[in-house]
Amino acid sequence: MLDQNTNLKSTEPKNKSKRFVANIYQSLLRRLYLSAGSPQLKIILWNNIQVSHPVAQYQIKIHNRATLFKLLLHPDFYFGEAYTQGHISINGDLVAILEQIVIGRKKRSTKIFRRLANAIYKFTKHVSRKQKISDIHQRYSLNHKFYERWLDKELMSYTCAYFPNSEYELETAQLAKMDYICRKLELKPGDTVVEAGGGWGGLALYMAKTYGVNVHSYIISPEQIIYARKKCQLVQLDHLVSYVEADYREIVGQFDVFVSLGMIEQIGLNHYAELQQAISRCLKTNGRGLIQSIGRNHADQANAWLNTQMFPATQFPSLQQILNTIGQNHTVLDIENLRLHYAETLSHWLQRFEANVDTFKTQFDNEFTRAWRLYLCGSIASFTTGRLQLFQILFTREQNNEIAWSRDHLYH
Amino acid sequence: MLDQNTNLKSTEPKNKSKRFVANIYQSLLRRLYLSAGSPQLKIILWNNIQVSHPVAQYQIKIHNRATLFKLLLHPDFYFGEAYTQGHISINGDLVAILEQIVIGRKKRSTKIFRRLANAIYKFTKHVSRKQKISDIHQRYSLNHKFYERWLDKELMSYTCAYFPNSEYELETAQLAKMDYICRKLELKPGDTVVEAGGGWGGLALYMAKTYGVNVHSYIISPEQIIYARKKCQLVQLDHLVSYVEADYREIVGQFDVFVSLGMIEQIGLNHYAELQQAISRCLKTNGRGLIQSIGRNHADQANAWLNTQMFPATQFPSLQQILNTIGQNHTVLDIENLRLHYAETLSHWLQRFEANVDTFKTQFDNEFTRAWRLYLCGSIASFTTGRLQLFQILFTREQNNEIAWSRDHLYH
Repeated sequence: MLDQNTNLKSTEPKNKSKRFVANIYQSLLRRLYLSAGSPQLKIILWNNIQVSHPVAQYQIKIHNRATLFKLLLHPDFYFGEAYTQGHISINGDLVAILEQIVIGRKKRSTKIFRRLANAIYKFTKHVSRKQKISDIHQRYSLNHKFYERWLDKELMSYTCAYFPNSEYELETAQLAKMDYICRKLELKPGDTVVEAGGGWGGLALYMAKTYGVNVHSYIISPEQIIYARKKCQLVQLDHLVSYVEADYREIVGQFDVFVSLGMIEQIGLNHYAELQQAISRCLKTNGRGLIQSIGRNHADQANAWLNTQMFPATQFPSLQQILNTIGQNHTVLDIENLRLHYAETLSHWLQRFEANVDTFKTQFDNEFTRAWRLYLCGSIASFTTGRLQLFQILFTREQNNEIAWSRDHLYH
Repeated sequence: MLDQNTNLKSTEPKNKSKRFVANIYQSLLRRLYLSAGSPQLKIILWNNIQVSHPVAQYQIKIHNRATLFKLLLHPDFYFGEAYTQGHISINGDLVAILEQIVIGRKKRSTKIFRRLANAIYKFTKHVSRKQKISDIHQRYSLNHKFYERWLDKELMSYTCAYFPNSEYELETAQLAKMDYICRKLELKPGDTVVEAGGGWGGLALYMAKTYGVNVHSYIISPEQIIYARKKCQLVQLDHLVSYVEADYREIVGQFDVFVSLGMIEQIGLNHYAELQQAISRCLKTNGRGLIQSIGRNHADQANAWLNTQMFPATQFPSLQQILNTIGQNHTVLDIENLRLHYAETLSHWLQRFEANVDTFKTQFDNEFTRAWRLYLCGSIASFTTGRLQLFQILFTREQNNEIAWSRDHLYH
């Protein structure tokens, strides 16, 4: 059946030995193509041997033998490495190509196969804890100046925005996200809020300024906390907002509201019980909470390249796993999947990233820009193909009856 | 600490032996009171020995020794039996009393204790499969004529209604529920819908009439299917609606939409995998689905009396367990908890039930009306105290991008 879908061509070698070698490459390439789930792509080798889907629109070129062998060994990891180092080049839209790869791999490989491949990779590479910690952020000493060039200018929000209107710019959509979350949490002036994982501090400022609430925002990055405190002083909201240099486990006190955006993906599944305890401790009797997190339809590991080179701690939970962080003495009120909004957010980030790519090439290097582009495009492809989800989960104490009677107020 | 909260009084017996017996009853009653989590109630025995919470508003009277001993043995089961048979009487609002009991029991007993108590009860009672099947519905041969007296007149919907406006009557709220579900599912004329567990057929008729869709509704009750087919002919919708006498496992064909209200609580957790397979088989590529189900914050057994005497098959799943029925090739789009709407729906049912109670006493008997009242009031108490939840879960095929960009359309 697969043969019917593929269209194998090769240039004719001049003599028998060359033909023999060409046949080997042809069959290796075909194996790679089939193991990738026959994506709608053309794959071409350095020696012009190629394999193509009948309706392929885009092309991937593999530049050397070593890359072909590595891709056969562990495509999930080595595609990222090879693209970043320039051993693979593409012809066409990178997002569309990655969508084909995501769809193809979903069709073909089982979780067990991917886990095994990741385990073998980690074993052969001897990825030590030290190596893992040295990710792209540390290798290139990334700080707010890098993010300022492609995140929204107002809030520097590094999580999914909300586009209820397709005409929205990124700034409007990030503000819309903040306000949507505040409405879901039914913030009232004087409410006390604790935020776990505050990033550059944008949500805390928005809540204090717009809803007159007191916010304690827990941030672990020293660079981010300096940035957030400066901005808070600048807009004169220090009387309402405190930034605390500590993590969610160290939250002290009781609050009306708990909120956390884009943090639980970073803490690791083995820390969910601690998060659950922290939430249980810190919420008042009628407390409400909101967690925004990337999720999956089933528990699985993140892409091996992303996990080793870009975001070592990242684990994308299933919805069931996220619910474990909320615990049994809380009630889920509302879950919304904003998957396509994250694809849109990432497209805005990509556009701004590409507008600055020459600066980044100079400031960092070519490998860096290719890695970052691959991460942004791969993330878009994961959200558009439904490989990743984005959940907003609203919850409250089990016996709280002071809850909105319907969601009508969110949309008026 | 508990002693400080309780206020123990007893009449003074005249002689030593009577005083000795009185002391035993006093201490047994106190034990019952403490094991019930010190509810805000006064409990009084046939001999006027009593125990009371300092701020008790309502009173429960236990009429005989056997009932006291049974309540000590297994309060979850025997409260229902004793109330039904008139061995317990109450003074005050039954819903408020049951709320106190639910809150109290949540405070005190662990799941393990309740499970053990249920297991002991089942062992001592030798509840055979045959006995279990002979529930209240069969003992009293209940049919649509009974339900017509207290469910909504238009749709005969025996699931949670939707009260976006507190002024709504039951009929309006059931219609609002149907329409809300249709909007969530984004029904378009010509869509094909399969319904698992169609009850008296109301949702199928509403969808066909209002949205011009084709509905196959699977119903297992012979009485309900006759009723539904008659009504369908009467309103001349037979060209759009078919009622099939079979269960969800026998669904044949592929549809744009799957819908099921109030069914999964009845099929038992051990059949969720079969339901998941049925949903996977029956949905088209971009298919959508909605499941409405009672749920809990954690997996637990239903009340022993309800489970043995009223609804033998009922099991209330946790949200995680409900998600298992949706399976990994589907994506959750939206989950809404309508817990307080179910309390409101039940209050309407209770009001109509009480308005007809004399008829029911004549037609059935006193024990029947007390049992049915206890079930309705107990259910209200379970929803108002947060012991039970009501989830509406909207999902779709993993790769479906033809989904609403926001929920705005649901509220305009």
